[in-house]
Amino acid sequence: MHEQPLNGILVVTVEHAVAAPFCTSRLADAGARVVKVERPEGDFARGYDRAAAGESSYFVWLNRGKESVVVDLSADADRRLLLAMTDRADVFVQNLKPGSLERKGLGFDALRARNPGLICCAISGYGETGPYAKRKAYDLLIQAESGLCSITGGPEEPARVGISVVDIATGAAAQAAILEALIARDRTGEGTEIQISMFDVAAEWLSVPFLHAAAGTPPRRMGLTHPSISPYSVFRTSDGRDILIAVQNDREWAVLCRILLERPEWATDPRFATAHERVVNRAEVNAAVAAAVEARDAAEVARLLLGADIAFAGVNDMDGLIAHPHLSTALVETPAGAAVALPAPAAIFDGGRRVAHAEVPALGQHSNAIRAEFGAVPYSTPAAMRTPSTTHQAKKIARQ
Amino acid sequence: MHEQPLNGILVVTVEHAVAAPFCTSRLADAGARVVKVERPEGDFARGYDRAAAGESSYFVWLNRGKESVVVDLSADADRRLLLAMTDRADVFVQNLKPGSLERKGLGFDALRARNPGLICCAISGYGETGPYAKRKAYDLLIQAESGLCSITGGPEEPARVGISVVDIATGAAAQAAILEALIARDRTGEGTEIQISMFDVAAEWLSVPFLHAAAGTPPRRMGLTHPSISPYSVFRTSDGRDILIAVQNDREWAVLCRILLERPEWATDPRFATAHERVVNRAEVNAAVAAAVEARDAAEVARLLLGADIAFAGVNDMDGLIAHPHLSTALVETPAGAAVALPAPAAIFDGGRRVAHAEVPALGQHSNAIRAEFGAVPYSTPAAMRTPSTTHQAKKIARQ
Repeated sequence: MHEQPLNGILVVTVEHAVAAPFCTSRLADAGARVVKVERPEGDFARGYDRAAAGESSYFVWLNRGKESVVVDLSADADRRLLLAMTDRADVFVQNLKPGSLERKGLGFDALRARNPGLICCAISGYGETGPYAKRKAYDLLIQAESGLCSITGGPEEPARVGISVVDIATGAAAQAAILEALIARDRTGEGTEIQISMFDVAAEWLSVPFLHAAAGTPPRRMGLTHPSISPYSVFRTSDGRDILIAVQNDREWAVLCRILLERPEWATDPRFATAHERVVNRAEVNAAVAAAVEARDAAEVARLLLGADIAFAGVNDMDGLIAHPHLSTALVETPAGAAVALPAPAAIFDGGRRVAHAEVPALGQHSNAIRAEFGAVPYSTPAAMRTPSTTHQAKKIARQ
Repeated sequence: MHEQPLNGILVVTVEHAVAAPFCTSRLADAGARVVKVERPEGDFARGYDRAAAGESSYFVWLNRGKESVVVDLSADADRRLLLAMTDRADVFVQNLKPGSLERKGLGFDALRARNPGLICCAISGYGETGPYAKRKAYDLLIQAESGLCSITGGPEEPARVGISVVDIATGAAAQAAILEALIARDRTGEGTEIQISMFDVAAEWLSVPFLHAAAGTPPRRMGLTHPSISPYSVFRTSDGRDILIAVQNDREWAVLCRILLERPEWATDPRFATAHERVVNRAEVNAAVAAAVEARDAAEVARLLLGADIAFAGVNDMDGLIAHPHLSTALVETPAGAAVALPAPAAIFDGGRRVAHAEVPALGQHSNAIRAEFGAVPYSTPAAMRTPSTTHQAKKIARQ
């Protein structure tokens, strides 16, 4: 593989949970050295669950390829260690509560006064200032507060998106902003101070429903049915597979009548010939499509629809994703040495994917090495915090 | 404002709909010159709706700050025009069906043979090859096919996420990949060929439920209720506001009993003292919280919860977003000259946001200027395609 674009870049990150770790995991994928600064208790995402070979699914997903150093920011020596690291770093990321680092003398101004080329990125819930700045801002809270839940789910009630979509989107926005700042620094030599809030990211992604509401036509929740197109619903095959079928226009309807419904005369039937009539008579349309789909197995329905170039998809569950012919996975190694298969990073560069194999660090796995490198005294982990995995030998991270 | 990081970068994009336009609108925000190549009929997203001052909400949101040139890729002269542009471009983006440009002699290999520094990015539904490569891949289809819908919504049935989240996420992934390739090119002088599929992006964002399913504990759909934490639900205030309240641990429960429920003794009541018992007795917990919230207005509930540092959020609709005290907007100008307010780009750079004002191009607004610049004959728009807005004078794009 090629040299990575971020080889030689040092990222120091005081992070926890999802948004900042997502951002820095992408920087690590691209070749940066990422030093994750953890409290003595560790990133609390380490304890979210045990779904990834006994480790937390979130933590394994978002912390592969990083180094972990335990730092107690209430201790002078450790604050000096952090400064020694940021003095040499290219990028500093943090998603603590607004004001936390400033109170310890580690605000962006202080760091950049010592290292003007440093790119600083703060990730928050509602921004650094404003009436909600101090509110807790878990992913689901911002999903609700931004209005995303109000347009997600069935007609009965609002629902959450099944993934931490606001956290992830915020991490992706931070990643892009940092990459832009690296490009700018190549020209100017100057760092940039970046602030990103989860609320702002959610609001921006909601631009389309925002505009519809501003125009007086707010979107409705319809589950998986399209409010103004028919047929556009889920139908079940004879072998029990749910298939979403989406007819886009009258031409496609005519094809569907011929190849699936076997009622070619319905193409011109005044009850169904136009998009408007098919919505008015949706119940009859759906009943006919349901009967035709129910009479065939999934492979046959797919063959017919594919041949007619009519849009469809399976309504898969997670087992369907795991078994999907288009799924690409990457292996990640847990601190205990187990290999966990994850969906691979999406981007393919010159025919190859970036992370073929990466290690997830144990809490403090790199503490001694990093303290030696940056000149601070070794940190003794309190005995109560020590876990078997922290005694593992740090291994070289295999990143292709 | 500073010089932008992508000033001087030329992006040529043969794009439609959402994913690629999202990507290139971000490159434009960062200072790139983005030339959008449209068919004589135009990007069909121009006709999705009329919610943005009579223009399409999607189109206005995702095409501000670009130039539009109409090109007929079935004509030799226009294929030469595209080559003349890509010969001078830094980035080329396309989200046509796999193979479309190759069949016209405009595949990435052909373009990069002429311009080895060109960064090419193809966005597809399921990738360039594989059994599903030719399937239609609208956002909702990939939401369903990837399994995202299966974990979104209430218990009754799967639901769509209320925004085109897979399209948007794919555009964001393409943006980051292109920025990485620009950084790499600064070192090597070489371009990169990038391929990104919507399915791969959705799969990667589904890593956590993927791991849970692989571990035999697939996630359940619970609407806005948390399956294993209580209280964690929506409650209605005396003035009719829905508030999501999330108690994280026994300490917070004790505080809630004191300040909101006014039953301090419940902190140690064996029915409720532990997280497990509160889930077992969820109905009683929720009834008590509901009664306490119902007896107060939203401001009072917020004051109490904020004082106790207990997590909560409003369950807002789009009008709630529009009126939100933390909403920042940017103005975008439609081809007809109307100003439309949109949620602003999230990232704040050195205290300022990027796009304070940008124009959305009419179809072919820059055709003549671009044809003159790149040496092709002017394109005469067929009379049937001409709309009033295409006769507007091209104006300088105001990008701060």
